Amino acid sequence: MYSHASMTPTELQPAATAASSAAPTAGAGPIRVGIVGATGYVGGELIRLLAAHPAVELVGLTGRERRGDPVGDVHPHLATTELALESELDGEVDAVFLALPHGTAAQRVPELLARGITVIDQGPDFRLRDPADYPRWYGFEHPHPELLGRAVYGLPELHRVEHIAAGEARSSGTPALVGSPGCYPTATVLALAPLARAGLIADVVVDAKSGVSGAGREAKAEMLYAEVNESVRAYGVFSHRHTAEMEQELGLDGLDFLPHLIPMTRGILAACHVRPGRPVSQAELDALYAEAYADEPFVTVVDAPPATGHVLGSNHARVFVRTDERTGRILALGVIDNLVKGAAGQGVQAFNLVFGLAETAGLEALPLAP
Amino acid sequence: MYSHASMTPTELQPAATAASSAAPTAGAGPIRVGIVGATGYVGGELIRLLAAHPAVELVGLTGRERRGDPVGDVHPHLATTELALESELDGEVDAVFLALPHGTAAQRVPELLARGITVIDQGPDFRLRDPADYPRWYGFEHPHPELLGRAVYGLPELHRVEHIAAGEARSSGTPALVGSPGCYPTATVLALAPLARAGLIADVVVDAKSGVSGAGREAKAEMLYAEVNESVRAYGVFSHRHTAEMEQELGLDGLDFLPHLIPMTRGILAACHVRPGRPVSQAELDALYAEAYADEPFVTVVDAPPATGHVLGSNHARVFVRTDERTGRILALGVIDNLVKGAAGQGVQAFNLVFGLAETAGLEALPLAP
Amino acid sequence: MYSHASMTPTELQPAATAASSAAPTAGAGPIRVGIVGATGYVGGELIRLLAAHPAVELVGLTGRERRGDPVGDVHPHLATTELALESELDGEVDAVFLALPHGTAAQRVPELLARGITVIDQGPDFRLRDPADYPRWYGFEHPHPELLGRAVYGLPELHRVEHIAAGEARSSGTPALVGSPGCYPTATVLALAPLARAGLIADVVVDAKSGVSGAGREAKAEMLYAEVNESVRAYGVFSHRHTAEMEQELGLDGLDFLPHLIPMTRGILAACHVRPGRPVSQAELDALYAEAYADEPFVTVVDAPPATGHVLGSNHARVFVRTDERTGRILALGVIDNLVKGAAGQGVQAFNLVFGLAETAGLEALPLAP
Amino acid sequence: MYSHASMTPTELQPAATAASSAAPTAGAGPIRVGIVGATGYVGGELIRLLAAHPAVELVGLTGRERRGDPVGDVHPHLATTELALESELDGEVDAVFLALPHGTAAQRVPELLARGITVIDQGPDFRLRDPADYPRWYGFEHPHPELLGRAVYGLPELHRVEHIAAGEARSSGTPALVGSPGCYPTATVLALAPLARAGLIADVVVDAKSGVSGAGREAKAEMLYAEVNESVRAYGVFSHRHTAEMEQELGLDGLDFLPHLIPMTRGILAACHVRPGRPVSQAELDALYAEAYADEPFVTVVDAPPATGHVLGSNHARVFVRTDERTGRILALGVIDNLVKGAAGQGVQAFNLVFGLAETAGLEALPLAP
Repeated sequence: MYSHASMTPTELQPAATAASSAAPTAGAGPIRVGIVGATGYVGGELIRLLAAHPAVELVGLTGRERRGDPVGDVHPHLATTELALESELDGEVDAVFLALPHGTAAQRVPELLARGITVIDQGPDFRLRDPADYPRWYGFEHPHPELLGRAVYGLPELHRVEHIAAGEARSSGTPALVGSPGCYPTATVLALAPLARAGLIADVVVDAKSGVSGAGREAKAEMLYAEVNESVRAYGVFSHRHTAEMEQELGLDGLDFLPHLIPMTRGILAACHVRPGRPVSQAELDALYAEAYADEPFVTVVDAPPATGHVLGSNHARVFVRTDERTGRILALGVIDNLVKGAAGQGVQAFNLVFGLAETAGLEALPLAP
Repeated sequence: MYSHASMTPTELQPAATAASSAAPTAGAGPIRVGIVGATGYVGGELIRLLAAHPAVELVGLTGRERRGDPVGDVHPHLATTELALESELDGEVDAVFLALPHGTAAQRVPELLARGITVIDQGPDFRLRDPADYPRWYGFEHPHPELLGRAVYGLPELHRVEHIAAGEARSSGTPALVGSPGCYPTATVLALAPLARAGLIADVVVDAKSGVSGAGREAKAEMLYAEVNESVRAYGVFSHRHTAEMEQELGLDGLDFLPHLIPMTRGILAACHVRPGRPVSQAELDALYAEAYADEPFVTVVDAPPATGHVLGSNHARVFVRTDERTGRILALGVIDNLVKGAAGQGVQAFNLVFGLAETAGLEALPLAP
Repeated sequence: MYSHASMTPTELQPAATAASSAAPTAGAGPIRVGIVGATGYVGGELIRLLAAHPAVELVGLTGRERRGDPVGDVHPHLATTELALESELDGEVDAVFLALPHGTAAQRVPELLARGITVIDQGPDFRLRDPADYPRWYGFEHPHPELLGRAVYGLPELHRVEHIAAGEARSSGTPALVGSPGCYPTATVLALAPLARAGLIADVVVDAKSGVSGAGREAKAEMLYAEVNESVRAYGVFSHRHTAEMEQELGLDGLDFLPHLIPMTRGILAACHVRPGRPVSQAELDALYAEAYADEPFVTVVDAPPATGHVLGSNHARVFVRTDERTGRILALGVIDNLVKGAAGQGVQAFNLVFGLAETAGLEALPLAP
Repeated sequence: MYSHASMTPTELQPAATAASSAAPTAGAGPIRVGIVGATGYVGGELIRLLAAHPAVELVGLTGRERRGDPVGDVHPHLATTELALESELDGEVDAVFLALPHGTAAQRVPELLARGITVIDQGPDFRLRDPADYPRWYGFEHPHPELLGRAVYGLPELHRVEHIAAGEARSSGTPALVGSPGCYPTATVLALAPLARAGLIADVVVDAKSGVSGAGREAKAEMLYAEVNESVRAYGVFSHRHTAEMEQELGLDGLDFLPHLIPMTRGILAACHVRPGRPVSQAELDALYAEAYADEPFVTVVDAPPATGHVLGSNHARVFVRTDERTGRILALGVIDNLVKGAAGQGVQAFNLVFGLAETAGLEALPLAP
């Protein structure tokens, strides 16, 4: 029995239920959840996590032209779940996770909300607050800018209060809308948030390394094993879309972000090279980070540079911070599993908060190593 | 909520408790478990599985010269468990898992049994029933051959009845002794058992492929990343020790076994090339395998050649069988995660049976992919 | 300066030239060579080898819809060659290498031969002597069965005399046609040929492991890095097309061949499990293999199980053979780089023989390790 | 036949010979070369390159306790060279490559120079000009600081003139001493030198990624395949010794360097994030880099972010530079194979210059991909 000091026990019934609210989850049953876009890697992770979630019943998994196919045909590792895919969400659901290409979710969300369904969008369509950022970084005009203010940026470590507020509104009949963060912003913002809040970042370079599962499951020649193996390359030079999220959440302009693809499947390491606005001691940094993350169930501040392998397959993140007397710089490192804390797990964490469940419900798995 | 048709719900209290037995687990508390040899890869997997096991309290983890060190120093991925290592098992334990070099466990087990402690030995010292096999295959005389008959070969799919009997004896005060199978034999025996039982194997070649975690965590130059990566090689030609287990469990002589190291961390695939003693139809094979594994919670018979990636990080096994009209041969394939179903998970599965728990307790995790 | 005892010096001028033949290479200039299908992995290897070949001028590289593109756009590692692609072979060529899908080369070869151009076909269209094997294994009727008898199976270690004869005919004006072997047959046939010739194979299972570059460069989801990494699987169960070649070259029926994909880019290891028709001593095996390969520039008989990493990037092959007293079986192992000795390098080796060059010309590179 | 526009033909006789100098290479024979420390990865690469070098005879390979062992016992891929190891350099040599731990070469070099032997030191002992840098970064007092001024920093792209001068001195009887650069500095300095020379670097962060062969061949648990695979981590935070070389060669202080280990064997990518002292246009950058590298045989300026896989197994380097209007920053990328251009190949390139050979002699191999 593993109990993290800061974890509260998973409650099998949503807290909202106890409050006998009028929300969809009221009553004795599990929360009914659908996944739209269940055939990709994030979709597969959502199934893996939600099929084992103690408070959830998976009632609808959709994938294009996949009506009736067993999940095992698409995700062989999940064959024992004996679930099947559908072409459309059929039944009644309390919440839906969207794992769709950018621009697509924005069009579908209003109708889902109108039906009273809480939405966790794993894509970027509801992450940015400024509508102008969509044409600028993503190349499309947002069709429903009025929803951007309502959406919660789904990083509980920074926005837990908003998650809980959205959950309370949900209990009162207003479904919640969560824009689940991107993988790079998750690693980066967790690494830098204590510095950003303290106003210590005068200048920052974020140099990130990612496994290739972040590129998705679509067949692309450049993502073939033989192309990726034994090679590393930078991409998205000065233009990666996740830059917008990082700047928004850290309150910075002109952040320099460079991602790399490295030969591994999962994992992101963000190395954040900071020039502080004033001299900072290691003791001050240690205090800042300890205060920021002492009570977080999924973020651990570590004393040695963390490896992505230390969090593989889990919703855990690790951060590390050091200052250097010689150069006056600060280095902050963050590591996550891009498909869990950087995608599906983070979505489930937000879902838990919105439905009044223990934040760690369904996310208790320890990392897998070696 | 994931429920496999053949899985019974995990019971938080051991069945033995309900029977108010005199065994160590009687009473309200969890089962107290120790791990001797907790610093290697199998030790790490045991901690990962048992720290999250609903009926277990981990009360002693030992590793040489590691007294007081946090588990995270040795297994960084397990840092959040906040457990520590000891040099010796201090407290009272109901069961102990041994992850020790061959020959070492054989010397320690008698004293543990005498203290009433049930032993799950992850090494080979209690797998073989014929004492002569130890000098022949392992190069040492077994110091306690009288225990070999008492030990249960810990493959529940073949020896469930013996596990349960050992569990009943345990309830009556006689601690159990389980010799948990080797990784290659697990994949091979699961793939071939239905054929062997039906007397269909006239001749068999087992050609197996393994990730390198099976070689352990000791620093060896030949296991460096740069030596293993982008290369495959056979080893243990005509001499691998696991041959003895396979022959014992399948009731065969002269089995031809060849293992290979391939550039991956986890996973074993055993390709078993069988020449049957008489013509066999695919329908007969399908019926044999369906019957053998229909009710097994961890073994799935599949219709397409399984990949080790389909079971990564889980206690699941997959088997596949085909006959060929052209050559008259049969191919049986088995895949497992060598550190879970091939080691720690299998040990926990046997432990569950011996302590009257649901066989799947603590082993519910779905495989991780991609 | 590296000189292999069995290698003769590379002659910068083709032997044919010295004999002042009437063949296309007569005169002072280099041999003019084209590559049809230069954009795939085999095409890239052909460019890499032939661009550095001392007796060759690359005069035409074709790839669909690639007219005028620099080679570096398709093969970034070859950017410094400053070669360009064409949509059709424009100029006069003495020889052409075809790296085309099966069935395609068969249609193009007659016209090339009619133009007096020697053809090295890297595909399967001219490997099999029995026209009935094409519909049976490849699913198409061969359009030019009359050429099958004329084609030389391009494994110099078995067919050197025929290569030289084809080269002499070429000098007299009859262009040569080489069907360059498949990757699996190369590793397998080299490992087994001495046994086959000695009539020692009563029964054989060939269990082979390949890196994924053999699957080509086309975008397929199942070949994505995230799908291949950390996983091994068998494929082509009882149906792989290369079986036909192996049976033809070894003079065997009912050969049992099973290939596997493993997570690496290059390399094939064929493990050949033989039941001999009579008892054979290790000394007899050693003598057989020494005799077979003592003078071969690219085949080395080794004393320990060879790894594919020992031949990476080179035209070398290594074979190993052992017999087992306990079971009476023989194990023969063969390793190659599938893109060099298993494809482009082997094609160049045959080309060298046909053009009267040193067999090792352009193939002197030592393997790359680690 | 591959001819790079900027490459001059390899001359089989050293230029010095033509000048009929009194140097050791005078006369008709090849240059006699020894390798001290031939058993590690750099040693293996030196053998691979020098065994095939047209002007070199390898006359002495030393490795501890390896007297008489065939090279193939230590480097199986090089078994066909039929070379053997010795415990000491026996015969007369003209030049020796040292591949030794830091601090060791410094003690051996004076005696070698006294014997008239030119030394190419692959370690750090003769890279730094300021003796104070040795205790500061390497933790030892340099035993022969008087040699630091004499040593040439072996990066021909920056110090070709000094190489040639050292070669001329060698012809007159004064053996040369080359401190061959570190792997990270090679990638970094090539990427940044044009900016540094132009005085454009106000501030720079170098974030580098390396394959693990750079960590050497010694058995260390942290370099086991299972530890390195599927994980990335930073190391040497604010303290990596190569920082000193970079600052020296770029004329910078306070350079921020962070290296990472990624799961691959070979290759380094250095991402250099520059804040320029004044606004710079892309056109100015393009002109600077074109001018710097137009005539370099091994450095190519490319238009898309280069991958390490584009230079694998070769002495090539690729650099890329971009400026960003939004942030005003410059990104410069450099990629090399750490064991070739980052070690053995670079040493051979310097050796060629010092012995008056074509700079590309023995280094003509194109990169290997995929």
